Amino acid sequence: MSWFHGRKIVCVGRNYADHARELGNEIPKTKPLIFLKPSSAVVSEGTLVRPKYSHSLHHEVELGLVIGKGGKKIHIDRALEHVAGYTIGLDMTARDIQDQCKSKGHPWTEAKCFDTSCAVGRFISSSEVLDPHQLTLWLQVNGVTKQNGSTKDMIFRISEVISYISGIMSIEEGDLILTGTPAGVGEVFPGDVITAGIREVPNSEIRFLVTTDE
Amino acid sequence: MSWFHGRKIVCVGRNYADHARELGNEIPKTKPLIFLKPSSAVVSEGTLVRPKYSHSLHHEVELGLVIGKGGKKIHIDRALEHVAGYTIGLDMTARDIQDQCKSKGHPWTEAKCFDTSCAVGRFISSSEVLDPHQLTLWLQVNGVTKQNGSTKDMIFRISEVISYISGIMSIEEGDLILTGTPAGVGEVFPGDVITAGIREVPNSEIRFLVTTDE
Ligand SMILES: [Mg+2]
Ligand SMILES: [Mg+2]
Ligand SMILES: [Mg+2]
Repeated sequence: MSWFHGRKIVCVGRNYADHARELGNEIPKTKPLIFLKPSSAVVSEGTLVRPKYSHSLHHEVELGLVIGKGGKKIHIDRALEHVAGYTIGLDMTARDIQDQCKSKGHPWTEAKCFDTSCAVGRFISSSEVLDPHQLTLWLQVNGVTKQNGSTKDMIFRISEVISYISGIMSIEEGDLILTGTPAGVGEVFPGDVITAGIREVPNSEIRFLVTTDE
Repeated sequence: MSWFHGRKIVCVGRNYADHARELGNEIPKTKPLIFLKPSSAVVSEGTLVRPKYSHSLHHEVELGLVIGKGGKKIHIDRALEHVAGYTIGLDMTARDIQDQCKSKGHPWTEAKCFDTSCAVGRFISSSEVLDPHQLTLWLQVNGVTKQNGSTKDMIFRISEVISYISGIMSIEEGDLILTGTPAGVGEVFPGDVITAGIREVPNSEIRFLVTTDE
């Protein structure tokens, strides 16, 4: 089990221009694109499972925000006060299923909400992070670097993301927000080892083995 | 506050053919269409708020399943053992926003996940319900009947819904599943009073006032 005890995980899609481009998606201009994962998707060690209905499991490394104080309609200027800390997060995505959902206009549930689709690292206290927009998120598959991006390149910054989400739904203590992935996403296969971390934060590294459900 | 203490709400869309048709949607043939609401959306009394970013708030009356025993990949034959009880539920929907999401291939989050978008009634123990597929769901706006459908008309029955969802994500004790709405959905306006219930279940009625966020 993990330290995560929240009831809600809100994820931002396409929050780095390079990543939006690599998947051929429009870059959001006026507001973040958001979706939910259930708390049952969280995993903090062991394996990441490719669901049997998918043939294309993708990694997405992201900065996670751990909410310390709930609120709604939070003003941008006060948003950071609601962050208790951070974590490295993986938004594991069944890309083939997501493509089907997108083309049909369906919600992305099957693509984003399966068990182990939300990998998290340790809780990183806010006091350990000087500037959350000066962090390097890296991810390797079998020791080969696949993603290496800076949180300075977020389209919607952390304060904007929190303010936007809380304008739609109340955020609560313990909730987790994944803030989007930089470029370099790609497929992983059973047997692959994923490692990821935040370069500037000691002991932030996570390590997972990819398996399959079949 | 309500009796609801779960961490996850899973909703089924288009689970009654008449309703799928009234919105011009394809009728799901092979599997249920599912999406999430966050626990922060639950309300058990008071007002239902039309978010300020929407101009078209719709009512959808639904049978809610309250999970008593968690599980994953639950077989259809054992699915009902996981139901502790039922509730009347309203899947309040920002229809204009949902239409935009559908046409862009975006997730439905803004349309389905706002505060007060999941109204619930009292907890109805399984022992109070002889056959959950012989229930009449009714909804009135200002005393005028708008929805009046039978759970016998679900495309995917309760056991299939539970089995399908649990094949994607683990369900947990306390989770709520909304099983879709029969025909007759429509817009409500600030000042409207919504009442709804399950005809065969005494004291199942709920009553909410619609307000606006503006
Ligand atoms: Mg992502
Ligand atoms: Mg969703
Ligand atoms: Mg519905």
